[in-house]
Amino acid sequence: MAWNFAAGPARLPDVVLERSAEVLFRRGIDGASSVERPFTGPDFRRAMAETSQRLAGLLDLPPNYQVLFMAGGAMQQFALLPLNLAAAGQRVAYADSGYWSHRAMAEAGASVVALEVARYPGAAPRSAPPLGRWAVPSDCAYCHITPNETVDGIAYPGLPDCAAVPLVADCTSAFLTAPLAIENFGMVYASAQKNIGISGLTVVVICQDLLERSPPELPAVFSYRQQAASGSCVNTPPMAAILIAGMVFDWIADQGGLSAMAAASQVKAACLYATIDGSAGFYQAPVLPGSRSLVNVRFHLADPELTETFITEAEAAGLYHLRGHPRIGGLRASLYNAMPVAGVIALVDFMVDFARRRG
Amino acid sequence: MAWNFAAGPARLPDVVLERSAEVLFRRGIDGASSVERPFTGPDFRRAMAETSQRLAGLLDLPPNYQVLFMAGGAMQQFALLPLNLAAAGQRVAYADSGYWSHRAMAEAGASVVALEVARYPGAAPRSAPPLGRWAVPSDCAYCHITPNETVDGIAYPGLPDCAAVPLVADCTSAFLTAPLAIENFGMVYASAQKNIGISGLTVVVICQDLLERSPPELPAVFSYRQQAASGSCVNTPPMAAILIAGMVFDWIADQGGLSAMAAASQVKAACLYATIDGSAGFYQAPVLPGSRSLVNVRFHLADPELTETFITEAEAAGLYHLRGHPRIGGLRASLYNAMPVAGVIALVDFMVDFARRRG
Repeated sequence: MAWNFAAGPARLPDVVLERSAEVLFRRGIDGASSVERPFTGPDFRRAMAETSQRLAGLLDLPPNYQVLFMAGGAMQQFALLPLNLAAAGQRVAYADSGYWSHRAMAEAGASVVALEVARYPGAAPRSAPPLGRWAVPSDCAYCHITPNETVDGIAYPGLPDCAAVPLVADCTSAFLTAPLAIENFGMVYASAQKNIGISGLTVVVICQDLLERSPPELPAVFSYRQQAASGSCVNTPPMAAILIAGMVFDWIADQGGLSAMAAASQVKAACLYATIDGSAGFYQAPVLPGSRSLVNVRFHLADPELTETFITEAEAAGLYHLRGHPRIGGLRASLYNAMPVAGVIALVDFMVDFARRRG
Repeated sequence: MAWNFAAGPARLPDVVLERSAEVLFRRGIDGASSVERPFTGPDFRRAMAETSQRLAGLLDLPPNYQVLFMAGGAMQQFALLPLNLAAAGQRVAYADSGYWSHRAMAEAGASVVALEVARYPGAAPRSAPPLGRWAVPSDCAYCHITPNETVDGIAYPGLPDCAAVPLVADCTSAFLTAPLAIENFGMVYASAQKNIGISGLTVVVICQDLLERSPPELPAVFSYRQQAASGSCVNTPPMAAILIAGMVFDWIADQGGLSAMAAASQVKAACLYATIDGSAGFYQAPVLPGSRSLVNVRFHLADPELTETFITEAEAAGLYHLRGHPRIGGLRASLYNAMPVAGVIALVDFMVDFARRRG
């Protein structure tokens, strides 16, 4: 038995992986499989509508929010956000909580003035930016946060108060791992390869008010308004990734929905952080307890010389893709929805044994 | 036996469809399948490099051209072309040969001044724009053509002379159906769902000179220069579509490469057009002979009242997705690389029989 702790592209639920070949590649009476058929035809239109409805159901989405399926990853949204949501000359606000929020702000800065309105304390991100009332100028088009920083292993313990400025969130890594109070957001987005399925797709959930901001001269594929008006079919969408997303949404519902995902997520993360904190300093978690991500658990060895040995022996024990992001090193275990508790138990068993032998 | 004549997403080669489940979804010793594994890891990097090399081999690509794998469809390139290739205030030139070239020009017009430098003769596209020396102002950043119009069924019989202005081509539908003299182009691009694989991916082949034009302030995922510098890995690429493209490129090579594809394409199209032209007017091809597409064969019935009957009876005979594009109606059979001669023979057999019974 092998366990894949990759930060994304990441493990799919077993049942989704098992069904994918049939759903994507089995030819029907028309001689075409789902990925060989017109996206304008009734089969794919129905699949897409159902996928959208399933997600709306999981999120308990109010009627004034729409789901968009956009090609590409979250980085594409970094560029599209200001183009869609900010008027000419309007400023935008960003919080810097680590690697990805920093990149989001940099990409936005290519087309608008991006103000940094909050930042992690200290020299390196070890906790989320302090919450409370943020000083977001009221003329800002939106305020962007990254509630879970995949690389840094940081999660916001709550949401800031940005007054009347709409909150926009890159929810990629923790999307669908817990109920989401969508009414607190003008828009959230998440690339698929963590908790939705495979790469090449980003889900956008956007409030009608913000949707109407997209300027008419924006290229159609990049316009939230035009994508919404066409049911995310301005052009051929990434069909395989959407079909897999539909299966993942079904699987989440079958497991009990987002509250069940949240309960499992709490158990998995608690188990791993307890192992780290209970190792008498052999393992160390760099993120302060109130800001620790439940899905991207960062840790390192007190003796960094042992890191490569840890990775080699972990792989021999069937535990893969535990290396930290190259920018910051160390170790990282990603515990998305599709990671069963059994995988985390296998990891902590190994960690306890490794610490005993090498400590 | 059923045959799928869809214009795209379209039929994949049988052997690719058969291998796809294993290549994409079978988990390896690390507990991860190809779509569940980091795109930065050695497995996917190797697959991507091989896929790029295979395409370069098929195209016999000179060393000053690079292959990029970009997320999304060709319409995204409509928007990215002027942003990457035109300097501030610089004009661009477009030829209007039908539905898709018209849309390409409209999207470019959102960010730059797009000049129409050539157009199909008459009120509706029935042939390619007249060739010869086009009056393209020498200050234009590029001249854009659509050598095969998927909707209109029109193909350029040759290339125009644009003097020193680089030619850029949307090659989507006819890509890899014949050898391509790439040295005539500054850039060509093709979305995957016709002759490369599944939707959600566009291949860009670009000359080094044009690559260097991408302005530094362009968002990284949209920048040809930055995508080239990162091996198309600015962010997580659409991995499933790239892995399938690799299999399709292998299949083309196994069949004898692009000259074999061109020979088969000629035979298939000749067979179908001969049936239309030999029907004593029962079937009609609206495109003039010198401009007929070999891959998107448009035709209609002299009696349009019979169109629905034709479609119903064709489906009963195992011939699917023959309805023309909704904008122009009629019928269309798309004969991409993966359509065997046997499929075309089944279609013409049905057409001859239908004409005999209904003529």
